[in-house]
Amino acid sequence: MMYYQAISQCTQMLRNLESWLDKAEEHAGAKTFDVGVLMTDRLAPDMKPFIYQVQSACDYVKAAAAWLSGQTLPKHEDTEQTIDDVRARIRKTIVFTESLTEAQYADAAERQVGLSWAPGKVLGGKDYLLQMTIPNVYFHIATAYAILRHNGVDIGKMDFLGPIHWIDV
Amino acid sequence: MMYYQAISQCTQMLRNLESWLDKAEEHAGAKTFDVGVLMTDRLAPDMKPFIYQVQSACDYVKAAAAWLSGQTLPKHEDTEQTIDDVRARIRKTIVFTESLTEAQYADAAERQVGLSWAPGKVLGGKDYLLQMTIPNVYFHIATAYAILRHNGVDIGKMDFLGPIHWIDV
Repeated sequence: MMYYQAISQCTQMLRNLESWLDKAEEHAGAKTFDVGVLMTDRLAPDMKPFIYQVQSACDYVKAAAAWLSGQTLPKHEDTEQTIDDVRARIRKTIVFTESLTEAQYADAAERQVGLSWAPGKVLGGKDYLLQMTIPNVYFHIATAYAILRHNGVDIGKMDFLGPIHWIDV
Repeated sequence: MMYYQAISQCTQMLRNLESWLDKAEEHAGAKTFDVGVLMTDRLAPDMKPFIYQVQSACDYVKAAAAWLSGQTLPKHEDTEQTIDDVRARIRKTIVFTESLTEAQYADAAERQVGLSWAPGKVLGGKDYLLQMTIPNVYFHIATAYAILRHNGVDIGKMDFLGPIHWIDV
């Protein structure tokens, strides 16, 4: 199975997201506006702002890493307000997921995982990865990306994808 | 491995996307504007419009299904202009991916896959799934979702996620 590799890829997506923050700061600097404007921007009045998108992406990665590897879920409070706070939130999520080894995911397929917003229900490990973790992680990261792009930040599709393990032929 | 299940989930995301088209039509009807406006809308001047996002999502799902199962890649021309064209594009993609069986993905991990925009390079099956297929499928579907949400279409996170295989406990 590929639980460890799938969570590693989600972690890589958080690294990609972190790199967009530098581009957001450059853009704000060039246009002389406070980058904090981007941190609270949203795509629609009834969608959540940038900082929430990052918090949520981080939490879905962190939760999947913890539950699928059988480790204790670290608690990260949603107190971020500045771009440096956002960087720190991403960083501590990555430090946690990178602390786990492939061997710790050995029983991932047999685990059952509950979510706080769905009481009385659980998901099997595979459904939790494919139907919950991956869709939510990409949803929140793509929404964060869209907020930056909508505001003119100079990022593109390859910044979204990040490093790709090409083989030369 | 879970190639078949991962592609099935991507196919389900196309079904979810198809359902948002009904909501887009309802919204356009209630506000009395032509739904075609949404088909050509984009989040930023240097991003692609809604129809392209759908075409690209469909193509990444179709390509992954074909290459990872060792089947011939069907060619779908990018000629869509109306919302019904968009529905048809999604439909024919789903018909193709649903024609494949789990057994046909047996050698997916050993396959090497090239992309037209990366000459002289290939990806191993796992990297192709995790670093190329899933990120691109979710990127384009989340961007299509964002275009609709930005324009006030009444869809939410559960419409994005679609059906979830909960187990009652």
